[in-house]
Amino acid sequence: MSMNSFGHLFRVTTWGESHGPALGATVDGCPPGVPIDEAMIQHWLDRRKPGQNKYTTQRREADEVKILSGVFEGQTTGTPVQLMIENTDQRSKDYGDIKDKFRPGHADITYFQKYGIRDYRGGGRSSARETAARVAAGGLAREAIRALAPNVQITGYMVQMGPHRIDRARFDWAQIEQNPFWVPDAQAAADWADYLDGLRKSGSSVGAVIEVVARGVPAGLGAPVYGKLDTDLAAAMMSINAVKGVEIGEGMGAAELTGEANADEIFMGQNGPQYSSNHAGGILGGISTGQDIVVRFAVKPTSSILTTRKTITKSGEETEIITKGRHDPCVGIRAVPVGEAMMACVILDHLLLHRGQIGANRGHIG
Amino acid sequence: MSMNSFGHLFRVTTWGESHGPALGATVDGCPPGVPIDEAMIQHWLDRRKPGQNKYTTQRREADEVKILSGVFEGQTTGTPVQLMIENTDQRSKDYGDIKDKFRPGHADITYFQKYGIRDYRGGGRSSARETAARVAAGGLAREAIRALAPNVQITGYMVQMGPHRIDRARFDWAQIEQNPFWVPDAQAAADWADYLDGLRKSGSSVGAVIEVVARGVPAGLGAPVYGKLDTDLAAAMMSINAVKGVEIGEGMGAAELTGEANADEIFMGQNGPQYSSNHAGGILGGISTGQDIVVRFAVKPTSSILTTRKTITKSGEETEIITKGRHDPCVGIRAVPVGEAMMACVILDHLLLHRGQIGANRGHIG
Amino acid sequence: MSMNSFGHLFRVTTWGESHGPALGATVDGCPPGVPIDEAMIQHWLDRRKPGQNKYTTQRREADEVKILSGVFEGQTTGTPVQLMIENTDQRSKDYGDIKDKFRPGHADITYFQKYGIRDYRGGGRSSARETAARVAAGGLAREAIRALAPNVQITGYMVQMGPHRIDRARFDWAQIEQNPFWVPDAQAAADWADYLDGLRKSGSSVGAVIEVVARGVPAGLGAPVYGKLDTDLAAAMMSINAVKGVEIGEGMGAAELTGEANADEIFMGQNGPQYSSNHAGGILGGISTGQDIVVRFAVKPTSSILTTRKTITKSGEETEIITKGRHDPCVGIRAVPVGEAMMACVILDHLLLHRGQIGANRGHIG
Amino acid sequence: MSMNSFGHLFRVTTWGESHGPALGATVDGCPPGVPIDEAMIQHWLDRRKPGQNKYTTQRREADEVKILSGVFEGQTTGTPVQLMIENTDQRSKDYGDIKDKFRPGHADITYFQKYGIRDYRGGGRSSARETAARVAAGGLAREAIRALAPNVQITGYMVQMGPHRIDRARFDWAQIEQNPFWVPDAQAAADWADYLDGLRKSGSSVGAVIEVVARGVPAGLGAPVYGKLDTDLAAAMMSINAVKGVEIGEGMGAAELTGEANADEIFMGQNGPQYSSNHAGGILGGISTGQDIVVRFAVKPTSSILTTRKTITKSGEETEIITKGRHDPCVGIRAVPVGEAMMACVILDHLLLHRGQIGANRGHIG
Repeated sequence: MSMNSFGHLFRVTTWGESHGPALGATVDGCPPGVPIDEAMIQHWLDRRKPGQNKYTTQRREADEVKILSGVFEGQTTGTPVQLMIENTDQRSKDYGDIKDKFRPGHADITYFQKYGIRDYRGGGRSSARETAARVAAGGLAREAIRALAPNVQITGYMVQMGPHRIDRARFDWAQIEQNPFWVPDAQAAADWADYLDGLRKSGSSVGAVIEVVARGVPAGLGAPVYGKLDTDLAAAMMSINAVKGVEIGEGMGAAELTGEANADEIFMGQNGPQYSSNHAGGILGGISTGQDIVVRFAVKPTSSILTTRKTITKSGEETEIITKGRHDPCVGIRAVPVGEAMMACVILDHLLLHRGQIGANRGHIG
Repeated sequence: MSMNSFGHLFRVTTWGESHGPALGATVDGCPPGVPIDEAMIQHWLDRRKPGQNKYTTQRREADEVKILSGVFEGQTTGTPVQLMIENTDQRSKDYGDIKDKFRPGHADITYFQKYGIRDYRGGGRSSARETAARVAAGGLAREAIRALAPNVQITGYMVQMGPHRIDRARFDWAQIEQNPFWVPDAQAAADWADYLDGLRKSGSSVGAVIEVVARGVPAGLGAPVYGKLDTDLAAAMMSINAVKGVEIGEGMGAAELTGEANADEIFMGQNGPQYSSNHAGGILGGISTGQDIVVRFAVKPTSSILTTRKTITKSGEETEIITKGRHDPCVGIRAVPVGEAMMACVILDHLLLHRGQIGANRGHIG
Repeated sequence: MSMNSFGHLFRVTTWGESHGPALGATVDGCPPGVPIDEAMIQHWLDRRKPGQNKYTTQRREADEVKILSGVFEGQTTGTPVQLMIENTDQRSKDYGDIKDKFRPGHADITYFQKYGIRDYRGGGRSSARETAARVAAGGLAREAIRALAPNVQITGYMVQMGPHRIDRARFDWAQIEQNPFWVPDAQAAADWADYLDGLRKSGSSVGAVIEVVARGVPAGLGAPVYGKLDTDLAAAMMSINAVKGVEIGEGMGAAELTGEANADEIFMGQNGPQYSSNHAGGILGGISTGQDIVVRFAVKPTSSILTTRKTITKSGEETEIITKGRHDPCVGIRAVPVGEAMMACVILDHLLLHRGQIGANRGHIG
Repeated sequence: MSMNSFGHLFRVTTWGESHGPALGATVDGCPPGVPIDEAMIQHWLDRRKPGQNKYTTQRREADEVKILSGVFEGQTTGTPVQLMIENTDQRSKDYGDIKDKFRPGHADITYFQKYGIRDYRGGGRSSARETAARVAAGGLAREAIRALAPNVQITGYMVQMGPHRIDRARFDWAQIEQNPFWVPDAQAAADWADYLDGLRKSGSSVGAVIEVVARGVPAGLGAPVYGKLDTDLAAAMMSINAVKGVEIGEGMGAAELTGEANADEIFMGQNGPQYSSNHAGGILGGISTGQDIVVRFAVKPTSSILTTRKTITKSGEETEIITKGRHDPCVGIRAVPVGEAMMACVILDHLLLHRGQIGANRGHIG
C-alpha cells in the first residue's frame, strides 16, 4: 500500500526529489518480452524536458534515463524495471532566500505541517520534476500496450490556456506536434504565443486545460465499482501536480444535459457497436465502450510568480514573498506528456487486469 | 486488490446487486471502541432512500441496515463490520421487455461486453442501489471521525441542476435540510421544484452538480504523490454512478486564473495559518491545509427516459427502446448523501494513515 | 489493504464472529461464467462442519451457506460473491464463567491487549468458526480452477497426530475419505482413533500435521520475489487458527540435506520436464515446476482443556481456569478442509495473476 | 499490488538483478524524522557481504549503498527512500558454459517457463544478491523502530547446519558475533568450521536453520486474520531465497504437544502479564503477547555444486551439468542478516499499522 505507487498489476512507484541526486520510477508487473531500450523511453522524456523553449522553465536538466533492471538483451524480463534519471542542474542556492517562507499556493506549507521537515530546495518531493518519472514509466507502458492492443493511440493536447479556448471547428491532429503548446489549432497556437510571452515577461503565470484521448481501446476495460476505468483515470490525473479538476467525456457539462441529449444512441457497425455521439467519453459504468476515451484536466497556474504576496514563516511571522526561481509561466504545457503517460499506464494496467480476470473476450455482440 | 474496495486503512468493500437478495458493505480497519448501532447508520440511509418524494424513484425499498459483525455491546471491536441491506422491492418483471436491448448511456452494454453476462434486472451491479452500501459505510466513518477529529463536519448540497445554478450570494447552510434537493438557496429550491416536475412528467431527466464540504479537517492529511487527499477524493467521487467530472476548490475554473489571483495568501491566526481565500479547496500538494475541503462532482442525467432512442440487441440487431422502470428524473438528488459518505470515508482513512505514518503532529508553525 | 483479506486478484475478505448473527466471505475478482450454486459450496462446508463424530466439537452448527450476490442464473457474474453462513447454535452462556479470565494459549488476552475489547463469547473473531468462511470461498475457487486448469486436484490429509506419524509406505489416497481423520493410512486411522478417544475422555488435546497436495498445477505460477507461490502458501496456511509452522517440500528437513541429495534431477518427458524426485515440493524460486505442490502445516493443540491452568483476569488478578466449552481434542482434523480451501484460493489467484501479466504461456521447453 | 513489494504501511519494493548495473530497495511509508545516513545502513550490509571468509562465496562485491532520495539533512522526510547498490563484480562470463542448461534445484528453469526469458547471468532476479536490498531496507527499519519502540532488539543466529544442531544448554548471546556462522554456541562454531570446510573442498553444499528473535516487542501488534504478525513473518521469511520452512515458537513440534504442555500459563508481573514459558513464540491469535517473538526458517542447500547432475537444455535435450561459479557451501550463513532484516521490516510495519488503527494503547491489564 505504497502511497507513492499507482496501478494494480502494472504498478509504478516513483521516488526522488527535485534536488536530490536522482529520481525515478520502479515499475513492477510489466509483461515479459516487451522490446525496450533507453532511447525509446528517452523519446517521451524529451517531450517533457524543461528549457526547450522560452515558454518553459529555464532549468536545464538532461533528463537522461537509465534502465537499471528488468531488461535483458533488449526485452523486459517480467521483473521490476528501474528507470532512473539523475538530477544534474540543481542550483539549490536559488532557494536560499525563501528558505523559511512558505509560498502561497504551494505545497511547502502542507509538507511542513505533515512531516515537520522543511525541504526548501525547490519543493522536494512536491516538485513537478517528479512527473519525469511518470513520463518514463509511461514510455514503457506504451511499448507494452503495443503488443497487447496494437490499435491504441494516446494523444494529449491543450484545449485551454487561461481564458483562451481552442476552436473545435479548427481541430487538427497534425497541428499538435507543430507548436510549443501541443495545441490542435494553428490559430490558437499563434495567439497563445503572444499571450504567454506577455505573462512570462511580467513574471506571472496562468492555468490550462489538457485533453488526453486514447483511440483504439477495446471495449470491456475497467473493473467496477472502485477500479472503474474513469475512477482510475480521475485518480491518475488528479495526482499530477497542480491539477484541480478532471472530466470524462462531457465532464462537468454533463450536469446541463437532459437524458435525451446525453444518450449516445447505438447502432451496429462492421466490427461491433457504434455510437451516434460520445458524450460518455468512451466509458459507461466504468467500462470502456470501444469509443475514444476522452479525459480532460485543469492545471492551476504555478505559484512561483514575481509579484509580492503575503505569507508567513516557519516560526509564524507574517512577511512577504517573491519567488525568483526558474519557473514555467504555464505548467500546463509540460503537463501534456505527463497526462499522456498517465493514460498509458492506466490503459495498460486495465488491459492486464481484464486479461487476468476474464481472459479471452466473452461478451460478443452480433 | 479487490476492485470493489476503496480506502487504505479504513477499507470498504461493497457487494450486491439491485435485484439479488441483499447488498452491503464489508468494512475493515475501523478503529475499536467507536460507539455504533443500527439506528445511527439508518439515519444516513434514510436520507438516500428512494421514494421519499415525487422527485426520486418510486421504487420503495425499506433500506434497513443490519450489522452482522464487528460490533459488540454497542462498540466496534476493530474487526470487520458487515453492513447488510436486504432488497425487498425487486419487481424484476419490470425489466422483461428490455431484456435483450441495451439502454443508450447505460452500463448494461459494457457489462455484457466485459463479463459476457447479461443481468438485465435493473442494472445488476451497476445500479445506483450499490450506493446505499456506501452511505452505510459512511455512517460508520462519521462516528469514527468524531472520536479522532471532533470538529469535522461534512455537508453536501446541490449547486446546479441542469442549466440552473445556485446564487452563491444567497448561500444558507440552514436551507440545505429544508428542501428535497439539498439546496442551500431557498429561491433555487422553489424554482427547481417546478423545473424538475416538468421533466418528471415528460419522462425526461437531467444532470446536476453536487458540492461536498468538509469543515474542521486538520492540516496534514493526505499522502503524496498517489495517495494525495485530492487524488483519493477524485477517485471516490468519480466511482459514484453517473459521475463525469470532479473538481477540487476552483476546479476546472483554475485554468482561467493567473498565479496572482490563484494564490491564497497566508496570515497568522490564533490557531495557526489562515488564508485570504480558498482557491485551493483546502488542499495543497495533496495535503490538507486546515481550510475547508471543497469537492464538486457532476452527475449526468439518468439514461432511463421515456423518449424512444435507437439501440441494438445482444444479437446485434438494431432496434428502439423506451425505459419504463421507476427512475429518478435527477439522480443527482440522491447523490448528495452518497458524496458525503465518500468524503467521510476518505477523511477517516487519511486520519488513520496520518496517525500510522506520523503519529502525533510534527510540523507546528509559530 | 484490508487485514481480513487475502489474495491478489481472487481476493477473499472474511468477516464475522463465532457468536454474532452470521459470518461469511466477500469474494472479489472471481472470473465470470463459473457455474456455481449453494449446494456446490455446501459440499465442502459439510466436510468441515463440527459435531459430525465424537472427535470434533459437539457444537452443532448447520453451517448453511447462502449466496447473496455475484451469481446470476447459476453462473458467477464477475462481481463480488457474498457467501454468508448464519450462526445458529451460539449458546454464549457456556462462556459466562470465564468471562473475565484469559485462557492460556488462547488469543483472548492479545485481542484484549490490542483492541481493549473483551468479546468473551467463544473467542469472537479469533474463533476457528472463521475458517468456515475460508472453506466456502475455497469451494468457489475450486470451481473457478476447473475452467482454467482442469487437471488440478487438491487434497489434504493428516500425516501426524501428536507423536504419531503415518507410515508413508502405507500411503493410500483412497483411504483419506474412509476415516474421520482424513488419514491416508488405514492402520494409522485405527490406532489414532483409540489414542484420540483417550485424550477426549481425559479432557486433553493434541496437535497435528496436515499435508495438502495440489496435483496437475501447470508450471509457471508464482510471482517473485514477494508474491512467490510458496510465500503466498506460507501466509495462507500460517493465517489459519493455531498453525505454528509451514513447510514446502522437504520443509525444515531441507536443512539436513546436501546439495547433491536435494537437487531434483531433470529429464525430458512427453509433456515437458520431468524430475527424479520432488524435494522442492513443486516450487523453485517461488514458481511452480509442474510437479505436485506439497505443503505441510502444524496445528498446535487447542487451549481449551479440562485441566486447571494458572492465569490472570482482566483486572490483573492471578487465578485458575478450566475451559468447559464444546471443543475439539484435535483441531487438526477440521483443519484439513481449511488447508485445502486455502490451497485452492492461492492456486486460483496465481492462475489469474499469471494470465494477467503473461497471457498465453511463453517459456516452452523442447 | 506489486509482486516485488512487501509490507503494508512500511512498504519495501526491491528491484534489480545479480548482473545488471545495480539493485536496490524503494522504501515507502517510513516515518519522517528518522536519523539515517549511508553508514548506518552500510553497517548491516557489511554483515551480509560475500567474500568475507572462506565459508561464503568468493564473489567480491563492495555492496556499497547509496541513498538517492527521501533523506534530507540526515533525517528521513517521510517520502520514498531509494537505496541503491551498484553491482561491481559481475563476471557474467563465468556462466557462459551453463547458458542453455537448467541447474537442478535452481529457479532458472521456472523463470524460463514463466517468463520465456533466459537470463543466464547468475540467476538474474532469482539470485541471492536480491537479499542485499532487503538488508538495506532492514537497516532503515531498525532506525525507525528505535524511535517507536526503543526496547526492541532483533537478533538472528544459526541453530542448525546440515545435521548438526546447537546445544541449547550452551546458548550464549555473546557468542553470536564471535564466529563466522552467527552461532550462539562456541563449541558448535568450532565443530561446524571443520564440517563446512570439508563440504567446501568437496564442492558440496548443505542446508541450515536460522532463528530470529525480537525482544522487547510490545503486546498488541498484528492484525487478524490475514495480517497476523505470524502470517506476515511466515511470508517474509518464506520469500527469502532457498527457504523451505518457517516456524513460530514450537513450530512443527507443536503437533506433538498436548494442550497442557503447550499452554503458557499466565502470571501478573510488574509491567503486565508474564508467562511460565513461550511455546507460542510470542504470538497468540496473530497478535504479539509481549514475550520474545521467535521465528525459525530452514534454508535448503545451494544448488550450485561441483558434482555432475542430470538435466535438460532449453531445447529439451537431456544433458549433464556442473556449476563452477563462486558459491556458498552454506547459504544459510548469509541468510542470518537477511532474516533479521525481514523481522525488522515486519515489526516496524506492524508498529505503524497498530498506531494507525488503534492509536494509543487501549487494552491495559491490571
